[in-house]
Amino acid sequence: MTDVSIIGIGQTAVGEHWETSIRHLAWYAIEAALDDAASTDVDALFVGNMLAGELSRQDHLGALIADFSGLRGIEAVTVEAAEASGGAALRQAVLAIKSGLVQTALVVGVEKVTDQTGNAAVTALGTGLDGDYEAIHGLTPAGAAALMMRRYMHDYGVTLADFAGFSVNANANAAGNPLAMFRNQLKPGHFTAAAPIADPVSLFDMAPLGDGAAALIVTSTERAMDMVPWPVRIAGSALATDRLALHDRRNVLWLDAAERSARQAMAAAGVGPDDIDLFELHDAFTVLAALSLEACGFAPAGQGWQLARDGEIGRTGRIPISTFGGLKARGNPVGATGVYQVLEVVRQLRGQAGDCQIPNATTGLAQNLGGNGATAATHVLAI
Amino acid sequence: MTDVSIIGIGQTAVGEHWETSIRHLAWYAIEAALDDAASTDVDALFVGNMLAGELSRQDHLGALIADFSGLRGIEAVTVEAAEASGGAALRQAVLAIKSGLVQTALVVGVEKVTDQTGNAAVTALGTGLDGDYEAIHGLTPAGAAALMMRRYMHDYGVTLADFAGFSVNANANAAGNPLAMFRNQLKPGHFTAAAPIADPVSLFDMAPLGDGAAALIVTSTERAMDMVPWPVRIAGSALATDRLALHDRRNVLWLDAAERSARQAMAAAGVGPDDIDLFELHDAFTVLAALSLEACGFAPAGQGWQLARDGEIGRTGRIPISTFGGLKARGNPVGATGVYQVLEVVRQLRGQAGDCQIPNATTGLAQNLGGNGATAATHVLAI
Repeated sequence: MTDVSIIGIGQTAVGEHWETSIRHLAWYAIEAALDDAASTDVDALFVGNMLAGELSRQDHLGALIADFSGLRGIEAVTVEAAEASGGAALRQAVLAIKSGLVQTALVVGVEKVTDQTGNAAVTALGTGLDGDYEAIHGLTPAGAAALMMRRYMHDYGVTLADFAGFSVNANANAAGNPLAMFRNQLKPGHFTAAAPIADPVSLFDMAPLGDGAAALIVTSTERAMDMVPWPVRIAGSALATDRLALHDRRNVLWLDAAERSARQAMAAAGVGPDDIDLFELHDAFTVLAALSLEACGFAPAGQGWQLARDGEIGRTGRIPISTFGGLKARGNPVGATGVYQVLEVVRQLRGQAGDCQIPNATTGLAQNLGGNGATAATHVLAI
Repeated sequence: MTDVSIIGIGQTAVGEHWETSIRHLAWYAIEAALDDAASTDVDALFVGNMLAGELSRQDHLGALIADFSGLRGIEAVTVEAAEASGGAALRQAVLAIKSGLVQTALVVGVEKVTDQTGNAAVTALGTGLDGDYEAIHGLTPAGAAALMMRRYMHDYGVTLADFAGFSVNANANAAGNPLAMFRNQLKPGHFTAAAPIADPVSLFDMAPLGDGAAALIVTSTERAMDMVPWPVRIAGSALATDRLALHDRRNVLWLDAAERSARQAMAAAGVGPDDIDLFELHDAFTVLAALSLEACGFAPAGQGWQLARDGEIGRTGRIPISTFGGLKARGNPVGATGVYQVLEVVRQLRGQAGDCQIPNATTGLAQNLGGNGATAATHVLAI
């Protein structure tokens, strides 16, 4: 079976791009990725996006972005799986390359959330939850995370302060990433004193929404070897789902989809948690970071938070996470986030992570969640 | 390379399903398809949908529908390419099966457009056009079709009445399809006298929007042979794009994406236009029917309308189209339409088309357009 590799990466800063339209935002990332691969020979485009229809009145991004990027005519579609849209778009590109029908695919995650004022973005994000049983009653992703966090604290005897390490680590790492939204230092005391968003989730617990775009170019490993000096192999790829509504899940404190897709991706790559040098996980909320570490085999149930307390998620720890700031501090451009995560692992494995570099990283994991874990797209990358 | 076949089909009537939620609508089609294949062994779900986020406040349909259909946990995503979302979802399923990573895939196209009153659906449909250069100035899909139709009439010296044959044929065929929206007979005089929507596009020129869902189950042809007595082979599959904005196209009267994807799909199947026994084309407007016939090689430029005038698109004509009523009379459930088209070809090739049957059909073509031709997904089916 065809082996798949990444030969080009590109990204914009995450933040408030008031003067940049969604097509321009996508193009800046694509241009950088095409430059990086030194090739414009692309057959297919997979766009990861969740909210353009609702927030920018623009669907049909496949045809729009292909045309605007000078790739007029190529196969192009949008892939949506709520906040996991970026990871899901990469998954489709992997399937396309492995099918043999597509030779080189471009994946772009793009999201523009700041064009609307007030609560528009938060309301739109609620469409990723169960509309009839959750969102219509006012539940938001932050509200859902608050329910999970409160239950975590109750079941495992953990306090709010015990989650601080995740946010402190994310901001510390973002300090080395000029494209991150928040590069200021965060102290544990800041975390516990932050304004509540949906108690116990607070301002410094929650990843900030931002505009952004990130792009990847993937092709068969065989072709990649001839094209670039540093192809990064997609050694494992999987996507799984769970029940959408929190109240329907087997266990609200266990991310079934995260576990299953991580197990499948790691099995395909022939690696286990001990082989992973860094993990770009979906830290939209600190409780999701803890639950992701547990679901993917880095800690037993109820003990993911201890990795943060003990400094094991830092650059020199047992399992470095959010090495460029994660969603928490790099920023969360929703449907683009999954592509940023994979791009960041690629930079680490190429040794191009600058101040964020994890020494000697050869194997990395990226996991993108949608609907607080109802979809999980997981990729193992290796050199 | 793995060959792909369809082993199960299911659909709901197209119409106003006031009392059925989007998840139920999808499930009814899925249930019928699983029954038809006599198997619930499915690995992956590809949902074709355009407007659920905007009209039903529900994104993340992959996880939602997988769960609600008793397929909890499987890989599931939404694929969007405006009105071509259904065809694009099938295309992803084909790539997935050919990749070898997915054994059996379920494709469901689903759309619920009647939950909102007033112009909500029409405004939402405008998100499939170029937002910054077309929709923001008030252009709608019907308005864009009107510009194309007026230009067609001008360039080729054709009158409004010359398009009547398309609508007359569609309604005549729908009379044999109990699941169609409009089964009444239409006379040429009705067509020319109909109320204008966007002159020269009139009420009887334009396909009615409706709620609906259609499902397909696809697997490798090798497996299919063991599972069902009547697998239908996907002999060719292609998706191509064109510039989104009409004013940017090379020629507003030539559907580049339709031509390219049809050529690719027919080449893969080793057939040409003369081998096609029926053609489910995207007759959202009569001018699109004429242009699709031309782009796919059934008539020279400017002469597609003559096939309608000469009765060559009827059941016994040279190239039967819209055999169950097409978008015009079966109804147009937007993101589900492309799946309906393929399902209808399957029914013809199985000899299960009832009153709509084309005698001895062995090869059929289905083409789903988005944004008046900016995306085209084309499939050749054969037994």
